[in-house]
Amino acid sequence: MTVEFQLVPQETFERIRSADAGDFDKAALIADLCRANALMTIKRAGSGHIGSSFSALDIMVWLYFFELNTAALGFDHPDRDLFFSSKGHDAPGLYAALYALGVLPESMLINLRRLEGTCGHPDVRIPGIESNSGSLGMGISKGKGMALAKRIQNRGGRVVVMTGDGEWQEGQIYESLQTAAHQRVGNLIAVVDHNKVQSDMPVEEIVSLGDFDRKAELFGWRVIRCLGHDFSQIQRAFETMRADDGRPKLIVADTIKGKGVSFMEHPAALQENGGLYRWHAGAPDDEAYVNAHREIIERAGLAYHRMGLGELLLKPVGAPPAVSSNGATEVIAEAYGAALVELGETLPTLTVLDADLASDCKVRGFGERFPERFIENGIAEQDMVSAAGGLARQGLLPVVNSFSSFLAARPNEQIYANACENDRIIYVCHYAGLFPAGPGHTHQSVRDISLFGALPDITILQPCNGVEAKAILRYCVEEASGACMIRINIGPSPSFDLTEHYQLRFGQGVSITRGGDAALFAYGPHMLNEALQTADRLSQRGVLIEVINMPWLNRFDRDWLKTALRNHKAIFVLEDHSPTGGLGDRLLAEMNRAGLVYNRPFHVFGVEGVPAWGTMPEALRHHGLDRESLVAKIENALADA
Amino acid sequence: MTVEFQLVPQETFERIRSADAGDFDKAALIADLCRANALMTIKRAGSGHIGSSFSALDIMVWLYFFELNTAALGFDHPDRDLFFSSKGHDAPGLYAALYALGVLPESMLINLRRLEGTCGHPDVRIPGIESNSGSLGMGISKGKGMALAKRIQNRGGRVVVMTGDGEWQEGQIYESLQTAAHQRVGNLIAVVDHNKVQSDMPVEEIVSLGDFDRKAELFGWRVIRCLGHDFSQIQRAFETMRADDGRPKLIVADTIKGKGVSFMEHPAALQENGGLYRWHAGAPDDEAYVNAHREIIERAGLAYHRMGLGELLLKPVGAPPAVSSNGATEVIAEAYGAALVELGETLPTLTVLDADLASDCKVRGFGERFPERFIENGIAEQDMVSAAGGLARQGLLPVVNSFSSFLAARPNEQIYANACENDRIIYVCHYAGLFPAGPGHTHQSVRDISLFGALPDITILQPCNGVEAKAILRYCVEEASGACMIRINIGPSPSFDLTEHYQLRFGQGVSITRGGDAALFAYGPHMLNEALQTADRLSQRGVLIEVINMPWLNRFDRDWLKTALRNHKAIFVLEDHSPTGGLGDRLLAEMNRAGLVYNRPFHVFGVEGVPAWGTMPEALRHHGLDRESLVAKIENALADA
Repeated sequence: MTVEFQLVPQETFERIRSADAGDFDKAALIADLCRANALMTIKRAGSGHIGSSFSALDIMVWLYFFELNTAALGFDHPDRDLFFSSKGHDAPGLYAALYALGVLPESMLINLRRLEGTCGHPDVRIPGIESNSGSLGMGISKGKGMALAKRIQNRGGRVVVMTGDGEWQEGQIYESLQTAAHQRVGNLIAVVDHNKVQSDMPVEEIVSLGDFDRKAELFGWRVIRCLGHDFSQIQRAFETMRADDGRPKLIVADTIKGKGVSFMEHPAALQENGGLYRWHAGAPDDEAYVNAHREIIERAGLAYHRMGLGELLLKPVGAPPAVSSNGATEVIAEAYGAALVELGETLPTLTVLDADLASDCKVRGFGERFPERFIENGIAEQDMVSAAGGLARQGLLPVVNSFSSFLAARPNEQIYANACENDRIIYVCHYAGLFPAGPGHTHQSVRDISLFGALPDITILQPCNGVEAKAILRYCVEEASGACMIRINIGPSPSFDLTEHYQLRFGQGVSITRGGDAALFAYGPHMLNEALQTADRLSQRGVLIEVINMPWLNRFDRDWLKTALRNHKAIFVLEDHSPTGGLGDRLLAEMNRAGLVYNRPFHVFGVEGVPAWGTMPEALRHHGLDRESLVAKIENALADA
Repeated sequence: MTVEFQLVPQETFERIRSADAGDFDKAALIADLCRANALMTIKRAGSGHIGSSFSALDIMVWLYFFELNTAALGFDHPDRDLFFSSKGHDAPGLYAALYALGVLPESMLINLRRLEGTCGHPDVRIPGIESNSGSLGMGISKGKGMALAKRIQNRGGRVVVMTGDGEWQEGQIYESLQTAAHQRVGNLIAVVDHNKVQSDMPVEEIVSLGDFDRKAELFGWRVIRCLGHDFSQIQRAFETMRADDGRPKLIVADTIKGKGVSFMEHPAALQENGGLYRWHAGAPDDEAYVNAHREIIERAGLAYHRMGLGELLLKPVGAPPAVSSNGATEVIAEAYGAALVELGETLPTLTVLDADLASDCKVRGFGERFPERFIENGIAEQDMVSAAGGLARQGLLPVVNSFSSFLAARPNEQIYANACENDRIIYVCHYAGLFPAGPGHTHQSVRDISLFGALPDITILQPCNGVEAKAILRYCVEEASGACMIRINIGPSPSFDLTEHYQLRFGQGVSITRGGDAALFAYGPHMLNEALQTADRLSQRGVLIEVINMPWLNRFDRDWLKTALRNHKAIFVLEDHSPTGGLGDRLLAEMNRAGLVYNRPFHVFGVEGVPAWGTMPEALRHHGLDRESLVAKIENALADA
């Protein structure tokens, strides 16, 4: 099956706006066509969140086209209404709506998750986006700040924040409910896109949230409930909430995850797939894409015709430029997940915690094998980490899982509190580093080594392949004295053969190429691959460098280091991290202590500034970390040496 | 007035336990005598939390002496009931109860906030302490983990966690309410010491929490309310909550802050002092101490006598060893607070946020002068930081205040989210560094430079005195391009005369002493003072070192650095921070880039491991950062050079 990409062009939306029809019919049609465009961009990007885009789109379209003053006043007017989505992964839907509105250019819309297009989660550098988002639970607080700024500066307009339902597991939501009510932020409206499904399971099963309405009322908010796909109800809800009576407002919108495509709609979609929802993240396969797109377009085409606008025409869009797979074949997290089960068989204290990312973190296998030692904690990282401290105090060995962006930062004080008890805990930071870059900075974790680095007695490691992942987990479980942090790359990555009988040795790296001109340290699969490609190109130019896979990010065997760095004319470190606080800093400090810093260059190549979104090559190039840039940098450094 | 320290000795508590009297009378008397002991240790330490110790003590005593199986089974029995206090600042009361119980030795009790005694907040290295605490909002999560560990390991016993009421402003509390209910943690009991007053103002005024009972019920908990000073009600509450019916349990105990001393009791104590509660933290003056102690002892003496135990005898305790004031005369935060008001007069966008530490952070003056631009956000740092992002997005310049331990770590992901928008925000991290060391690790912030360091476009500074604090704040407000973090020392500190017309110059330090043997970088008042004392001693031994005050912790003027470090035989950095991720790391990286690392020693002296509690000399000595240790280290390093 060949997939053809087709766009509903912006002029079609203009024609619908001008049509002789009721607002509700127009809104329904616009939203449906936005679904088609969102779906197309996700398929074209190879990734993105369908289910949540579809559940939110009716409300987004109603807001932009019929409720808010933003489009009329302009997106830079101080008195405009401000709207943004806190969950952020509904960005494809949001972009489709902004495109339909004429705010987002076509070239950006169609290039979802590409450097020159749009970010996988909203970013203020994109037209129409009022706030970065995608780190869950922050939106109402952020909106409160905006609403207070309007009050302080005597500006008009409301602030409308869309949240997911799962993100109400984050404690920050309740902080913001309390303070917004206390501070009488009456020009703030939150909308819950209450689609009842989180990553791939129902909210009720992960961590039940009970009754949103009564909760928010008890926290001092004015609450109304509506069907989020019924435009008359949506209209009435916002009308009811228009007056600033000093109370912040919550609209609980009952919605359907995957709304608009029969086989993606909750609850049917869950039942079909054994209780797991398949359409939260990731692109559909070709067949599902074609069927879903056709279903929407056929329905919308009829409505368009009924509105007297003739035939619905689609505009062909070229296939996306091919992105090299970088030789990616191995999923390191799978080896980790398997090792976890293996260790669980013999170690009855091993206990695994998860924050609604069990599938991505490959810990579902452990959960199925040892349900009594698997704690699904929902999107509540602080609670998870403190609970792990309690488990450790009572003799268990907790292995805490989440994406690194969330696990290293949000519960950082809780991690420190555990560390001050010398608790033996293993923190597994998935999705560490720059990649995948498509989701954008909220999901790119290039500060995690620095965030863990100053803890008392913490060992930080990252495997470059599955074999090393198993060895590292085994070390952390069986040998390490204090707490450990393991960075794990998500998704397929290049696979490396380490030496046949690979043994992880404390503080030692593994030379993968030989070469006396320079040493190049790298860690994790993607950067190691880039380092090897760099070495290969340099060797063709007569420069021989030794690439060292360094799984230990803050521990060094000094004798090994002295031998390893005896003869090199220069030392380079390729970070999958900021140049501040990563392996480079630790290595330089250790080399200084060992008397290994002398008249030779030492350079750290890291992720500077805000991590770039896009494909892997785009992000590497942007940060000057691609093989071509590295070849040039290394040659320059050696020339200066 | 001469203060004499007198202890109610442990045998007195044993006599009460064995007396022929009812449990309620015994409990009341034990609690009162624990109040006397707690008060004495606070006065002797010169610091500590009276109000919260007094409000919690009746419940604590009832638990340890009459309700829990812990004392009977022993504090190492797997089936024991586990009790700890989440708020932690009621530690003087807790220690007094553990002493009365015969668990904590006298030498530890009387040496509150000293290295060989007890920590200002609970620490598991102290007998009877089940969990570190003092970072607010973590306790129910931690207790949930302990309760789950009991379930997983088939151990008996309940877990009882005491919380404050103010700490319910922390979102983590609601995470833990949700997950504990969902996970059916029925052997978990939380108790709110609902004394209605936070740092120095009523909870209702800071951020109202509404109805605890209904909130917790809505979150799936079983709730009962009682008077926390009525033992029959306390007894009944715990009896009612004994069965594990799968629901976690909350006991809301209405209490009185400062209970037991007439002039410390809320609400009278607030009214007397113009609405601010004086007895939350800090030791009372001599007169207040004597009056309070006398009031308790007179009442308890009568009860003791009525119980047929004769005369209540107290045991004299020596005065604490004198602690040198280190020449501390200046409160840098006051200069900061004054500068904030000054800048506020001319800059209408300057907006100040606080998290219930307005008095300590010296921002109350700004709040009084510009109430519309002062946001009191309660103990909700994540919400505060995201709200600051919203303010910044809407054109204001937020200045965010809290203690560094809380501000650098807990909202770290929120700070990153703001940074990715390039928001101009100033984070002011008070209470930064190792001192005061009395409160212990929860309040010692020796990771903050590393936690901020890898953010895109962040400038980190710390003033050594008031003049520099003003200059730094002005720089951050008027000149800096991105976000800034300012570390501020709390409490009196040594005062330095910088050059007469001191000017803060980007990336440049200030030489305070001259000397060609070595350069010693230091920052902040206490470490700079220690560095100067070290230089003084070294000079007497013929070693001349240049002490450089370095307010820029991650920014360097390379030309200045090249000149400054031209001739020294060695470079030393004295950190008020972990040796990882502080000024030393940044300086070494910059020196490497500038070609300044060559055959001379570079040593970083930092706070390794868990920060030690105690007096300043004790903590310095423990970490080898006192002048004597530094003299030895520097002489050794120079000898090796």
